Amino acid sequence: MTRYKLTLEYDGTPFVGWQHQDNGLSVQEVLESAIEKLCGQSIRVHCAGRTDAGVHALAQVAHCDLPKDYPPHQVQNAINYHIKQHLVAVLAAEIISDDFHARFSAIERSYLYRIIIRSSPLVLERNHAWRIKHELDTGAMHDAAQILLGKHDFTTFRAQACQAKSPIKTLDQLDVIQTGNQIEIKVRARSFLHHQVRNIVGSLKLVGEGKWSKQDLQSALEACDRSAGGPTAPAQGLYLTSVGY
Amino acid sequence: MTRYKLTLEYDGTPFVGWQHQDNGLSVQEVLESAIEKLCGQSIRVHCAGRTDAGVHALAQVAHCDLPKDYPPHQVQNAINYHIKQHLVAVLAAEIISDDFHARFSAIERSYLYRIIIRSSPLVLERNHAWRIKHELDTGAMHDAAQILLGKHDFTTFRAQACQAKSPIKTLDQLDVIQTGNQIEIKVRARSFLHHQVRNIVGSLKLVGEGKWSKQDLQSALEACDRSAGGPTAPAQGLYLTSVGY
Repeated sequence: MTRYKLTLEYDGTPFVGWQHQDNGLSVQEVLESAIEKLCGQSIRVHCAGRTDAGVHALAQVAHCDLPKDYPPHQVQNAINYHIKQHLVAVLAAEIISDDFHARFSAIERSYLYRIIIRSSPLVLERNHAWRIKHELDTGAMHDAAQILLGKHDFTTFRAQACQAKSPIKTLDQLDVIQTGNQIEIKVRARSFLHHQVRNIVGSLKLVGEGKWSKQDLQSALEACDRSAGGPTAPAQGLYLTSVGY
Repeated sequence: MTRYKLTLEYDGTPFVGWQHQDNGLSVQEVLESAIEKLCGQSIRVHCAGRTDAGVHALAQVAHCDLPKDYPPHQVQNAINYHIKQHLVAVLAAEIISDDFHARFSAIERSYLYRIIIRSSPLVLERNHAWRIKHELDTGAMHDAAQILLGKHDFTTFRAQACQAKSPIKTLDQLDVIQTGNQIEIKVRARSFLHHQVRNIVGSLKLVGEGKWSKQDLQSALEACDRSAGGPTAPAQGLYLTSVGY
């Protein structure tokens, strides 16, 4: 068996998420079907971060063990050929040592959350950003966001379904950057709780609307209670942008 | 009757083009159906530039005469409500004088053509750019492009189906700009022949590949013969970006 590291782009819109589910098509299923066509046998693919339904990836990382020593470009091209009708592509493939694990070897994950401010519905960016009709105070959002940096109990921003053993996480970056009518929220950590980024964005939006002060965000964090947090921002604005090893 | 100027964004992918056709859904039909729901009667919508199937618009301009004096924001919101399941949106609506005509009053049209250089199929940008697998010499493309500026007989870059009376047009801008793996070709003129931008881009690609010199482009222009030009670039890379009055 030879282990391959795959870098993947996908549009989350048509998928139930990364992981196999009974109620629809997953990114994992699309990839595993393509790899089965290449190898003639069923192969499991493991990813760095299991994205939810509607969440996109610019550079998800996955690994799989193939029964033959294929040249990496052949693996890339063959998978891309078999998935071409789906909104998934292999951006890069490489042979990697057997002790590499896409999920457990990762030491850093970066996400981007995109907001577009405009009164009209999105068209060319439909399903690729959260459209908000009114202006947000992104200076206040960025300023408040900095209190979430570092090691905290993030229970307030954790989905009830989250299976992580501990709610303690360390945020390394949380920047809110506005360019014209586009807002990019960039966030980086070793790992995240389920819905953590979307729940943080939903709370930062309250700050941007003037409904929450920086102190309100601080109090929400300290409450360690999901009901103290803002609403969950929609999936379509979220992108897994990179995984560090 | 009150005349309204509408600024429109659309994704050309699902449409047969701007104009009504028997073989599928047009942008015009989607808009006219929505306006009929607002006004209770059939209203014709006229646009500045009739885009082909697959061609997008960031700011197409159209006008229509409505039987009542609706507030512009009501026109915008009502149309957007009725077209919400389609990839079209009204970005702005305003009341304008009766001598304004979206097509005949226009003195300038700007288009953008997007190329993305990468080996993998496009995913998040699928149908929104022309994917080319190999590098292009964009410096050479920009340099050669400048010989097309000014007033010329553009027969070489004109679709056979073009209904314009004259093949003489004046190009005011033709810039080829590369940022990372993205190439933007920006072009501006009072008006264009059918397929003129896509045929110019198809020829500039030959220059970028080193298959054509600047002199070859000059000779192609001077031939005044469509068969002397390069192939037509695909529709999905083309955007109508603005119309000047």
